[in-house]
Amino acid sequence: MNSVKVFSPASIGNIGPGFDVLGLAIDGLGDTVEAREISGNEVVIENIFNADHDISNNPDKNTAGIAAKETLRALDIKNGVGLTLTKGMPSGSGLGSSAASAAAGAYAVNELFNGGLSEDELILAAMKGEAYVSGGYFADNVAPSILGGATLTQSIDPLKVSKLGTIDELILVLIIPNIQILTKNSRDVIPNKIDKRHFITNMANTASITAAFCKNDYALLKDNLIDMIIEPARTKLIPWLADIKSAAVKAGADGCTISGAGPTIFAISNSHQRAKKIKYEMEKEFNNHGVECTGFITTPSNAGSREVMMD
Amino acid sequence: MNSVKVFSPASIGNIGPGFDVLGLAIDGLGDTVEAREISGNEVVIENIFNADHDISNNPDKNTAGIAAKETLRALDIKNGVGLTLTKGMPSGSGLGSSAASAAAGAYAVNELFNGGLSEDELILAAMKGEAYVSGGYFADNVAPSILGGATLTQSIDPLKVSKLGTIDELILVLIIPNIQILTKNSRDVIPNKIDKRHFITNMANTASITAAFCKNDYALLKDNLIDMIIEPARTKLIPWLADIKSAAVKAGADGCTISGAGPTIFAISNSHQRAKKIKYEMEKEFNNHGVECTGFITTPSNAGSREVMMD
Repeated sequence: MNSVKVFSPASIGNIGPGFDVLGLAIDGLGDTVEAREISGNEVVIENIFNADHDISNNPDKNTAGIAAKETLRALDIKNGVGLTLTKGMPSGSGLGSSAASAAAGAYAVNELFNGGLSEDELILAAMKGEAYVSGGYFADNVAPSILGGATLTQSIDPLKVSKLGTIDELILVLIIPNIQILTKNSRDVIPNKIDKRHFITNMANTASITAAFCKNDYALLKDNLIDMIIEPARTKLIPWLADIKSAAVKAGADGCTISGAGPTIFAISNSHQRAKKIKYEMEKEFNNHGVECTGFITTPSNAGSREVMMD
Repeated sequence: MNSVKVFSPASIGNIGPGFDVLGLAIDGLGDTVEAREISGNEVVIENIFNADHDISNNPDKNTAGIAAKETLRALDIKNGVGLTLTKGMPSGSGLGSSAASAAAGAYAVNELFNGGLSEDELILAAMKGEAYVSGGYFADNVAPSILGGATLTQSIDPLKVSKLGTIDELILVLIIPNIQILTKNSRDVIPNKIDKRHFITNMANTASITAAFCKNDYALLKDNLIDMIIEPARTKLIPWLADIKSAAVKAGADGCTISGAGPTIFAISNSHQRAKKIKYEMEKEFNNHGVECTGFITTPSNAGSREVMMD
């Protein structure tokens, strides 16, 4: 019977100051969903591989399953679908794990039935899947997981999302500490009232990052990852953040902040040699704090969700 | 003796939600400064033409004069300079009147002595001039008056400003009511604490407008002029704003907001026919409120300050 396999990249939500507005797909990490037509009219989670925690195989409690069902509903198709989810990144790390699964679920089902949905419709279906885990509708991970590159969420209702582009020079140093932070908790710490000066700084930095990805201009990104509002609030959940950032900047990073809700930290550079040193120094600082971590060097992924070869 | 004549365009500060971050040069309005070498080592304001209020001819109390002196200081030149300022727009209207005079003063003096200063240095010199009137250092009018197009102020200290570009389709309907609002007063009404939801909306809209000017894409500008923070606060100073906006939108505008600190209101469209209707309906609504006004239809100016022919 008919089947497709889809890969959806991991992503960095917010890109520093752009809370709920910006997101960036990254290369080398992501989730895979294989979808196949099965008899009956149910969505069945047939396999879950490589999960680092207990992921439900109930399709109504699984981000890929929910996204798949939403996609079928949008396509107005009643066929049965079997899904195999292969995780390619840790959960709760701030790299859009649930969004990547949801994106792959939606994209795979759409491909399986010949791709009738628009990118916006796929994003909406995947957002429904992610909402089950994150507790709200956000596109800052789902949009880059579907579209690739850096994305801008103008509004959620109605959905207005666009792809900004990528920065060829940009090298990302990602350090994933071996602890989990759930998006729900990390949203609770954000203050409801924001200082005017901080608002202006975050808005200026977010506009600069936006221009950087539109113009493929590293110089506009450099030094603008600074977030005066969300990161300071989330620092309570990541007490060693200041030391890691300082180690990254000392090693030559042009910026360092948390990825999405954290705890993954990323730093930026446009030099491969400096990136290696930054990675080494950040890992060393995590060790100093007694926190196990996995570091790697990657780049943005200008490709979003896409069909890949079956094994 | 050597002399030059420089035109600097008027500008729209903020472009709606982008408070202190975005600015846009506009076509058809602006100030002209003629600078000539004179004997001695003083800056002398020789003439002021077409001013709608009393502008000081003391070079230390005149935005063009202050900017000219700053430019001479940056160039390390001690020559005497005579300035003739010709105003081409009303003061206190929210179209960057003092910024355009300052930009023209700085640009003209730099040209007079063969243009040794960078754009950033010219912006800094002009900002000193504008600060005398506005009570603070801002680049959202000076930057577009110097660079043209839409500009982004990433930071003031150190100065980081860049030109984003323009939108070919964009038509601006400007209505200047015959009242004055001084920037100082209009900044006082802005709240010091900002609601989180409003912060996110303004940031998303500002990022969209940024992307629109980077990508020359009217669709990204359309519907994103909405400012949840500054405009509602300034509405106290412009009580008829809601009615004017509603008239503009009813006539087909894709957005309508105050220019800078106001009271000038601008609406956007990409249709000349609609722009005429929008202008007519906005003027009519001003009349209903018993406020005299001057309306006109223009476009962004992708050119900033430039030398023009002597008469």
